[in-house]
Amino acid sequence: MKLFVASGLVFATSLVASATEPEQHAAWKDQGVIYLDHSLNARLHSVPVQAVHLSDGFWSARRKVTTERSLPTLLALLEEHGVVDNFRRLDGRPEIPRKGPLYTDSDLYKWIEAAAWAIASNETSEADKQMLRGDVESLITHIVAAQEPSGYLNTYFVGDKVHLRFTDLPHSHEDYCLGHLIQAGIAYYRATGSRRLLDASIRFADYVVENFGATKRPFVTGHPELEMALVELYRTTGDAKYLEFTRYLLSGVEKDRLKLKDADMRYMFSGKPFVSHTEFEGHAVRALYAASGATDYFTEAGDPAIRRTLDLLWTDLTTRKMYITGGVGSRSAGESFGDPYELPSEQAYAETCASVANVMWNFRLLLLTGDARYTDILERTLYNGVNSGMSLSGNLYCYRNPLASSGEKLRNPWYDTTCCPPNIERLFESLPGYFYAISRDGVYVNLYDNSEMDWHLEDGTGLTVSQATNYPWSGDVKVTVSPAHPAEFAVYLRWPGWASSAEVAINGQPIQTAAFRRGEYISLSRTWKPGDVINIAFPLQPTPMIANPRVADDYGRTALQRGPLVYALEQIDQNGVPLGDIFFRSSAPVTVEVRKELLGGITILRAPGSASEKLLSEEPLYTPMPAVPTRNKRPVILTFIPYYAIGNREPTPMEVWVPLSRFDGPPVAQTAGNVEHHF
Amino acid sequence: MKLFVASGLVFATSLVASATEPEQHAAWKDQGVIYLDHSLNARLHSVPVQAVHLSDGFWSARRKVTTERSLPTLLALLEEHGVVDNFRRLDGRPEIPRKGPLYTDSDLYKWIEAAAWAIASNETSEADKQMLRGDVESLITHIVAAQEPSGYLNTYFVGDKVHLRFTDLPHSHEDYCLGHLIQAGIAYYRATGSRRLLDASIRFADYVVENFGATKRPFVTGHPELEMALVELYRTTGDAKYLEFTRYLLSGVEKDRLKLKDADMRYMFSGKPFVSHTEFEGHAVRALYAASGATDYFTEAGDPAIRRTLDLLWTDLTTRKMYITGGVGSRSAGESFGDPYELPSEQAYAETCASVANVMWNFRLLLLTGDARYTDILERTLYNGVNSGMSLSGNLYCYRNPLASSGEKLRNPWYDTTCCPPNIERLFESLPGYFYAISRDGVYVNLYDNSEMDWHLEDGTGLTVSQATNYPWSGDVKVTVSPAHPAEFAVYLRWPGWASSAEVAINGQPIQTAAFRRGEYISLSRTWKPGDVINIAFPLQPTPMIANPRVADDYGRTALQRGPLVYALEQIDQNGVPLGDIFFRSSAPVTVEVRKELLGGITILRAPGSASEKLLSEEPLYTPMPAVPTRNKRPVILTFIPYYAIGNREPTPMEVWVPLSRFDGPPVAQTAGNVEHHF
Repeated sequence: MKLFVASGLVFATSLVASATEPEQHAAWKDQGVIYLDHSLNARLHSVPVQAVHLSDGFWSARRKVTTERSLPTLLALLEEHGVVDNFRRLDGRPEIPRKGPLYTDSDLYKWIEAAAWAIASNETSEADKQMLRGDVESLITHIVAAQEPSGYLNTYFVGDKVHLRFTDLPHSHEDYCLGHLIQAGIAYYRATGSRRLLDASIRFADYVVENFGATKRPFVTGHPELEMALVELYRTTGDAKYLEFTRYLLSGVEKDRLKLKDADMRYMFSGKPFVSHTEFEGHAVRALYAASGATDYFTEAGDPAIRRTLDLLWTDLTTRKMYITGGVGSRSAGESFGDPYELPSEQAYAETCASVANVMWNFRLLLLTGDARYTDILERTLYNGVNSGMSLSGNLYCYRNPLASSGEKLRNPWYDTTCCPPNIERLFESLPGYFYAISRDGVYVNLYDNSEMDWHLEDGTGLTVSQATNYPWSGDVKVTVSPAHPAEFAVYLRWPGWASSAEVAINGQPIQTAAFRRGEYISLSRTWKPGDVINIAFPLQPTPMIANPRVADDYGRTALQRGPLVYALEQIDQNGVPLGDIFFRSSAPVTVEVRKELLGGITILRAPGSASEKLLSEEPLYTPMPAVPTRNKRPVILTFIPYYAIGNREPTPMEVWVPLSRFDGPPVAQTAGNVEHHF
Repeated sequence: MKLFVASGLVFATSLVASATEPEQHAAWKDQGVIYLDHSLNARLHSVPVQAVHLSDGFWSARRKVTTERSLPTLLALLEEHGVVDNFRRLDGRPEIPRKGPLYTDSDLYKWIEAAAWAIASNETSEADKQMLRGDVESLITHIVAAQEPSGYLNTYFVGDKVHLRFTDLPHSHEDYCLGHLIQAGIAYYRATGSRRLLDASIRFADYVVENFGATKRPFVTGHPELEMALVELYRTTGDAKYLEFTRYLLSGVEKDRLKLKDADMRYMFSGKPFVSHTEFEGHAVRALYAASGATDYFTEAGDPAIRRTLDLLWTDLTTRKMYITGGVGSRSAGESFGDPYELPSEQAYAETCASVANVMWNFRLLLLTGDARYTDILERTLYNGVNSGMSLSGNLYCYRNPLASSGEKLRNPWYDTTCCPPNIERLFESLPGYFYAISRDGVYVNLYDNSEMDWHLEDGTGLTVSQATNYPWSGDVKVTVSPAHPAEFAVYLRWPGWASSAEVAINGQPIQTAAFRRGEYISLSRTWKPGDVINIAFPLQPTPMIANPRVADDYGRTALQRGPLVYALEQIDQNGVPLGDIFFRSSAPVTVEVRKELLGGITILRAPGSASEKLLSEEPLYTPMPAVPTRNKRPVILTFIPYYAIGNREPTPMEVWVPLSRFDGPPVAQTAGNVEHHF
């Protein structure tokens, strides 16, 4: 352990020497969700939320309901449960009792971050911006007033709990609340230029950095999150001490001084050297935030051991521990990862926060590398495991996102631990910042939806890129590229991993795509002129997916996917045939039906299936395998809806992985008999 | 609730009036594991452990290692961990500190019960009997000395914890320890005639009965077990107050007085009226003990509502919540039942104690009804889910009994909560008492193994029944029936549910069995003469079993069974092919191979299977379903051992449910190509 500390310090010294102080920072409004213009290792630079307009389409609808419904109703609930009052009582209202678990401050900070990105966005109405800005300013006033002269700021460890400050870092969430304070401060600064909350967060961050460290009092992130926040604070201020403290957090040298237990370090995914991890374990959100923070650190400072660890972890996650929805964290117990391939459907935990974290992590890896495999995971998680987390109405949330259910109510307006609602809101509101990115040689189109980017190339040449599409319901996208003047650069168009082919044409002239592969970016380098049009077409076949046979719960089953959307059966759509008695006939064609009136406008899939002759609930639990098939003979039509839309009608049983009717011959290719409809 | 209390009291009055005081009790040595000679509703009467000799065979080997290895090594470990000292400190050794969790007394009582049945058995050597009796007498001396004049007896709630007695019944285990004290006292009395421990247990039971009740202080069984014990105490003493107190416990009227929470009552399976239960939930051992106690109560006192509840629960257990091994309790969290069909293999809890409880419950239901469906469950659980719980060496125990494992060490000599080891020992030692039973019209042969019953018919006619067999490795059993003089009665031979056919001959003359069905008793009524011989033959085909498709983890998989034994794959037998890459070819013949040298002498099964061409651990997690099969092409031979024998070599991955290779055509009947070997 000592040796590690020593080499770590040597590394740190060289790091601080080599990481160039950002010479000139972009104006607040030019900084993206994460800001990488001066990052050592970033292949891509982010585009500010302000610079991207999501026009009418799939995600603009989700953002609209977030802005107009989710943010106001959640703020009202945070008020109702005393989360804001917890600050007011420190702002001259000592008679107000403190309410809620010890981490409630973070929920308000996340709400502020979400509101900040809503304010930043140019499709939020002026009226909504005004209202949100008024709310945030008022909240900041209470927050700043609650801050102590030392910089310490936490509504729980006050009064008779002052002596407990930083005495139980594995559980106190002081680190976690500080992290979200910093992120909220940065977001509001990038949205408005106001430094009031940012400066408060800096004061608290400075308090921690000055009082803790390898040669001071020991620190550990009991709930990793601060790592991401401190690197972003370094990116925002240029002050290397925040990056150095992140290095200290990742170094994991305080096990002995803090008497950390192995079980705690496993649960926290923190406390031991980050580079000693070889697989994901413990609390899923903690682990993914830790990995995100380590990615941020690597993006700024390098360190090949961290990069190797990130690669190991990513492979572990995506090949052994992730649901097809992008959801992660299999177990309710400890909200934790399971063993490899332990991905139960009905018992799945798959917390919304963990899906949000999965998107955040893969976004960081994408910007670090420009590798579309990260965008594939980001897209899968965003459209399914994240998107399921908020109701279509915008005011009901999933905490768990299971892949099967016997009909319990999955969506609720409030949870005592209400981490997920503001987390999904901050992601949805910041989503414009995820769509495009800039590289040294051009522009990346990461996500497809009606949108317009108004930004510039790395050399300053103005550039707008706009999309017209019905994605994800259609695979046709028209991209218009308009540099301020004709210029040679590359447009990188993502060929999603789910698309078996891609047709690309520039100004009506087909482009040979044989050199490119699915799951990569198609680079189109040429001299682009204002108004150049790229047409891309990805075939949107309903695709029966199978899982690696090592996933016990999914063996012999299929999940339908079409484009980025995973589909599910809800009981109420199956004409009374019990969901547990339904089988998928893999040899039968799946048809596509556009239903604009249903669930906010969706495309449903219909597949001929079969049902057992007798109710399986009345059949024995174990029987000798029959010599000839005796079950599954009754033909039925299965109706699938997108997974994200589950639970928006009455509570009803649901399943993603449908058992295959085994005895109707081998499956045929997924191209058979599909009928494609368009809007 | 009040109405229920009122009607309950009315019922109780009529009950005490109608339940005839047993007029004459059999001598101590004539009482079985449970004693039913005077039970109102029992169709069968048990046969004492003393009256059945298990000669060389499957179960005598397990009993022998239990007596010679398990009992002495476990007593040494109980000593080492202070469980006996906890009594000594109250027997004039106050300097000894109390050790272990608050329920350690029960572990020693269960050990005494096991030793008592060993002493009762006429195949235990005189030397072993002497040694065990010496141990037990010494233990009883300390136990009795620790008892207070009031009758109270518990080593935890003493000293500065006296004021906590009976203040937290949902968690204190005082009820549970008393139950095991009573059962140990009864067993030792039935084994030796000594009333010393029995009388101590009566004193404590009387303390409880006198101080608690609907009109006295409220009581609840936080860990049901006392119910069974009190009914057995009623059967032993004839004192109806113990039966009446059991009625009170089952009535569930103390919810309000004890401020019981719904979650606690669900976990305890106690506190609310027993007859209000409609399915198993909560802690599996608690629930099955509660059901066993309710069965005992019904057997004595009747009450149709209890019988209906028992039927509901049994159907729930055996059609929705039981592993193919007879193991129950799917979840580690709360050691609890899962949802219907929630039966994960690798995450299975399936505590050994729950399997023991499943055997105890089904034994009670069998004696109540004479219905072989209970014997089927009893046999399945005994041979598999219970038998796996103790190593072949007799000194290592499973707490969990999962149906798949990635290689963790499942067997340990000691657990801080060491409930399972003495539980399996008391069952194994009392096993002779499970083999036979007496009805008004004859004798029941419940289990098959080399054995001799020396007992009598209901009318007093002396009767020996002996078996010669290689069961469970062979399905041929020779039963010799020898009444003291020619007499007309029925011999009931169990036709196991797993046997597709049965051939029966009396003195060489085949008997027509068309009138009988599998899963029932074959009744052979005639005038039996001394030395009459019945030959029974059940075909022992290796049978690929499938689970109800609603069991997500087992869909598309098969488990091999042969006779009562469930089989499993262990990694070390598979020639290096990773277990996760192995598929079962259902169309291929399974061969049988006797291996006397392996794992104490077993019959292994070999089946041609297939393995994926590439390591599945290196394949993606989710892929489009291929149009033609691309996996599972490499032929391999799968080697199966009986499930109970797993984990007796090095720790190694294991699985019971093997995925079916989907694309090699429909399965053929399980009769194809089997090669039967005999000893």
